[in-house]
Amino acid sequence: MHRVIIVGLGPIGISCARTVACTRNLELAGLVDTDPQKQGRPASDFIEPAPPGTGHVTSNLNAVLDRDIDVAVVTTTSSFTDICPLLRQLIEQKVHVVSSCEQMAWPWYRHSAEADKIDAEAADTGCAILGTGVNPGFVMDTLAVTLSSVVTQLTAVRCVRRVDAALRRKPLQKKIGATMSVQNFSAWADTKRIGHQGLGESVALLAAGLGRTIPPGCVHETLEPVVATRPIKSALGMISPGTVAGMRNRGIWHGDDLTIELDLTLSVGLDDTRDQVLIEGPVPLDLLISNAIPGDSATVASLVNQIPKVRTVTPGLRTMLDMPPAGCVEGRPPLR
Amino acid sequence: MHRVIIVGLGPIGISCARTVACTRNLELAGLVDTDPQKQGRPASDFIEPAPPGTGHVTSNLNAVLDRDIDVAVVTTTSSFTDICPLLRQLIEQKVHVVSSCEQMAWPWYRHSAEADKIDAEAADTGCAILGTGVNPGFVMDTLAVTLSSVVTQLTAVRCVRRVDAALRRKPLQKKIGATMSVQNFSAWADTKRIGHQGLGESVALLAAGLGRTIPPGCVHETLEPVVATRPIKSALGMISPGTVAGMRNRGIWHGDDLTIELDLTLSVGLDDTRDQVLIEGPVPLDLLISNAIPGDSATVASLVNQIPKVRTVTPGLRTMLDMPPAGCVEGRPPLR
Repeated sequence: MHRVIIVGLGPIGISCARTVACTRNLELAGLVDTDPQKQGRPASDFIEPAPPGTGHVTSNLNAVLDRDIDVAVVTTTSSFTDICPLLRQLIEQKVHVVSSCEQMAWPWYRHSAEADKIDAEAADTGCAILGTGVNPGFVMDTLAVTLSSVVTQLTAVRCVRRVDAALRRKPLQKKIGATMSVQNFSAWADTKRIGHQGLGESVALLAAGLGRTIPPGCVHETLEPVVATRPIKSALGMISPGTVAGMRNRGIWHGDDLTIELDLTLSVGLDDTRDQVLIEGPVPLDLLISNAIPGDSATVASLVNQIPKVRTVTPGLRTMLDMPPAGCVEGRPPLR
Repeated sequence: MHRVIIVGLGPIGISCARTVACTRNLELAGLVDTDPQKQGRPASDFIEPAPPGTGHVTSNLNAVLDRDIDVAVVTTTSSFTDICPLLRQLIEQKVHVVSSCEQMAWPWYRHSAEADKIDAEAADTGCAILGTGVNPGFVMDTLAVTLSSVVTQLTAVRCVRRVDAALRRKPLQKKIGATMSVQNFSAWADTKRIGHQGLGESVALLAAGLGRTIPPGCVHETLEPVVATRPIKSALGMISPGTVAGMRNRGIWHGDDLTIELDLTLSVGLDDTRDQVLIEGPVPLDLLISNAIPGDSATVASLVNQIPKVRTVTPGLRTMLDMPPAGCVEGRPPLR
C-alpha cells in the first residue's frame, strides 16, 4: 500500500485525487492547496465518496506530512524555480514526489545548477523526485526514445501532436489563445502569458535518451497562432474567422548527426488530430496514434501510474529516462 | 566503454557482432560458437573490418571470459532450459547477459522454479541477465505496457503484428512453414518443429506489466497455416496456391477484468503489414506502426541498445519490465 497526498487542487490535481482514491494499493491520505477558497473544505467536496482519513484541504503541508506519507503528487506549477521550495520540504520529510511540473521533465535544460542541488539533496535523504506527464513526459519524448530502441542508427526524430482543444478544459483553451486577436496573441506570447510549457524540455529529454546533451537554451522554439477560417464554438465563446483558434509550438534542434523536431498544435476545432513519431535512418519507422492521446486523462494517468514505481528507483532527481515502463496499475472501475 | 562478446553466430549473432564493432562505447572482444564449421575462423570472416582484439571464433567460452568481459550477447537458443548451463558459466564469471532467447522474455511462464534459481544466482554474483528482442520483448508486450501508462483503466489489450516474411531471412521462412503442404504444417506444428517462439511469454510479460500473474500454461495459444491463394516467390522456392505461405499464431488470456489477445501473422507475400496496439477501456487508444517493424534488424537493435543499460539495473534475472527506455545508443554510420 502506498500512502499518497495531492498537492495542488487544480483540475489535474483533483482528478489525480479521485483516481488515487479508487486505485488498488493506493491510499489517499491528504489534500493540500494554498487557495483560501479551498482551505478547510472537506475532501468530499472534491471526491465522492471521499476515502476515510483524507480529511480536509489544508495549506499546511507539514501537518499532512505527519501522516506517514510515501508519495506526494504535486500539480502546482510549470516552473522548476517555483517548485523547488516545496520539493525541499518534501525531501526533508523523506517523501517521494511525482509531479506534472513541465520544467521537471528535464530540469537541467533551464536550471542545471539548481537541478544538481535538488538531485543531491534528494539522494541524501533517499527520495526519488520525478517529473512526468503526457506532454512533456511521454508522447513527444519518452515514447520516441522507447521506439528508437529497435533501430541501431537514426538521423532524425520528428514528433507531431495535433490536439483538438475543443475537447479540453477551459483553462487550456485560454492558455492556447483561443478567441484572441492575432495581435494580442503575439503580445501575450512574447510575455509568455500564453503558450505550451515544456517543449524545450521534451527536446532535451529526447536528445538525452539518444546520448546527446543539449546546452541550455539551444532548442530553437517558435510559437505561432492558428487562425480560424470559419466560426468555431469554444468554451470561451465563439471564435470568429481571422481570430485565434489555438497555437502551434515547434522545437527544433540540429546536432552533428541528428535532428530533433517537435511540432505541437493545440487548437479548437482542429482536424487530422494525431500523435506521430517518425524515425529517419536506414530503418525508418512511422508510429501513429489515431486522434491524439487525450491530454488531461493521460496526464493524470502518467502521474498516478508512477506512484508505485517512483519508490523503486535510485533516489535523486529522476526523469522518465530512469523509469521502467509503468503500465496501467489500476484496471478496475472507480468506486462509484 | 563496455567490453562485449557474442555467443552464437547465427544470422542475428553475426549482425550483433557487426553492430557492436561500429558502435561508440562498445568494444567487440570475442566471438563464441560451438559449430565446428565456424571454430578457429578469424573474426574478419564475419566482420569486415574486424576490430583488433576480437581474435578467432572459439568454442571455449572460458578462454574468452579471461578477457575482462562486461556483457555477453547470447543468441544460441529459444529454450530457457537449454540456455541455463551457459547462463551459469557467465554468472560465475560475473558477466552480464543480454539474450534473444525467446523464453527469457518471461522465463517464469514456462520455467518458474529454474527462473527463480537463476535469479538468485545472478543476484549473488552481481550480474543482470536480460531476455529481450523485438518479438517477444518489444512490439507485442513492452510497447503495450508503455502505452498503457497513459490510461488509468483498461478492459483489453489487443496487439496485431503482420509481417511479410518475403523480406526476412531464409531460416525464418522455413520456421513459419513456407512451401509446405497444409497437412505437413499441422504435423510439424504439433511436434513444435515450426512456429513462432515466445507468444505465451509476451502475453505473460504484458499481463505482469499490468499487475496480473498468469499461471504457467494458461495462455490459450493457437497456430494455423496461412494458405497461399496465388503463386508466391519465396527464398525456399515458389509457393503454390493451396500450400502454406506462412503462419498465424494467436495467444489469448482472459482475466477477471482484463483480456489480452496477441495476433501474429508471419507469411510470405502478406499484405496490410503493420504493428498495432489497441487498448480498450474508457479512454481507448489505437497505436499503429506502418509496415511492421522489420524483425531482424530490430532484434539486433534491441540486444545492442541494452548493452549499456543491463549494467545499470539491479542484478538478477531481469525482464523488459525492469528496464528504463534504452534508446538508440549508436547514431553513427558503420565503420565501412
